[in-house]
Amino acid sequence: MRVKHKKWAEPLIEAHPEKITTDPAQFKGKWQSRFAKEQPIWLEVGMGKGQFAIGMAKAHPEVNFIGLDVVSTVAGIALKKSLEDEELPNLQFICANGAGLDEFFADGEIDRLFLNFSDPWPKSRHAKRRLTYKTFLANYEKVLVPKGTIELKTDNMGFFEFSLVSMNNYGMQYDGVWLDLHHSDENENNVETEYEQKFAAKGQPIYKLKAHFA
Amino acid sequence: MRVKHKKWAEPLIEAHPEKITTDPAQFKGKWQSRFAKEQPIWLEVGMGKGQFAIGMAKAHPEVNFIGLDVVSTVAGIALKKSLEDEELPNLQFICANGAGLDEFFADGEIDRLFLNFSDPWPKSRHAKRRLTYKTFLANYEKVLVPKGTIELKTDNMGFFEFSLVSMNNYGMQYDGVWLDLHHSDENENNVETEYEQKFAAKGQPIYKLKAHFA
Repeated sequence: MRVKHKKWAEPLIEAHPEKITTDPAQFKGKWQSRFAKEQPIWLEVGMGKGQFAIGMAKAHPEVNFIGLDVVSTVAGIALKKSLEDEELPNLQFICANGAGLDEFFADGEIDRLFLNFSDPWPKSRHAKRRLTYKTFLANYEKVLVPKGTIELKTDNMGFFEFSLVSMNNYGMQYDGVWLDLHHSDENENNVETEYEQKFAAKGQPIYKLKAHFA
Repeated sequence: MRVKHKKWAEPLIEAHPEKITTDPAQFKGKWQSRFAKEQPIWLEVGMGKGQFAIGMAKAHPEVNFIGLDVVSTVAGIALKKSLEDEELPNLQFICANGAGLDEFFADGEIDRLFLNFSDPWPKSRHAKRRLTYKTFLANYEKVLVPKGTIELKTDNMGFFEFSLVSMNNYGMQYDGVWLDLHHSDENENNVETEYEQKFAAKGQPIYKLKAHFA
């Protein structure tokens, strides 16, 4: 997500080590210690401004939620929002590059993974950068529990087509596909991202795929 | 496909045993004998009025094409069209219920299978009637060559969502997914069905899935 640089973001992140880390590798295998209660950990890779992460932590008190983004400005905005909001002891943030998730999490430490409106990298020569490319899937599989689930949402047709093929070819089992999420039963418990809210208002379809590793 | 009953259809079918059969089981394992040349057999289940079958036979002289439909009126219309058109020695028709394909074809006798705009059976309690339900897939797998391919086109979102999950869960490997076929590169060699032609003219998307058995 591209946003204007905010000078206050990095100092705010530095000032709140109890809520956000820029060095997640130090907590590998010890993430439960960052939360009030020991319960399943759900992870969003590319949380943007954090509306989804905060919404999910509220909607799912039975889960520990981690939002991750590499961009310090958006991670800072997410942090700021969460500080102004009610205290959520089941919410943590990471500001770091999610390309090497296995450096941040022990095998099986994550219970469910979310990819929301990831960069589609539309050019063929950039296919390896798409977050559903097989090398990323292998990384997700490692940090997820056995048969761990991925939930993916996007408005980008090309990225969704690619993801459907890539995740199938990797051997993942589909639990559900929605080609117009906002007009489906699946929308009942849907927590929207900032981007999704704006985009769906234009009447364009949101795609969703829910799948687990075999 | 629902069409008005045509009185002439059944007598026309009876009059052309060289081009169409209502008793396909008698040719099980012997389909090559119905064609001028021995070459891979492609089968369309639910051909409707035959525009796709005829178009494919013309576009692919290197293939023997069989169009099948249970409704005698539409099979009769397809036959009539093909008789009025140029002689296509690589085209055959079947008028019979395709639910038991393994009674009509020997194991591995079919090289590729096409499902075009199949009845979506939208009610959950009718899911077993959808042509991509697992029992049908098992039947297709039997009559197809090893790693045989299915190509599916539909305009029905619910049926496409169901098929994506069902074919994935069966263990099929996806070769490609298109969520707007007519505005994709895949459309270059697309042969349209009658229904597709009318439907796409309204600007609504056509979905396509190409997948093979593992």
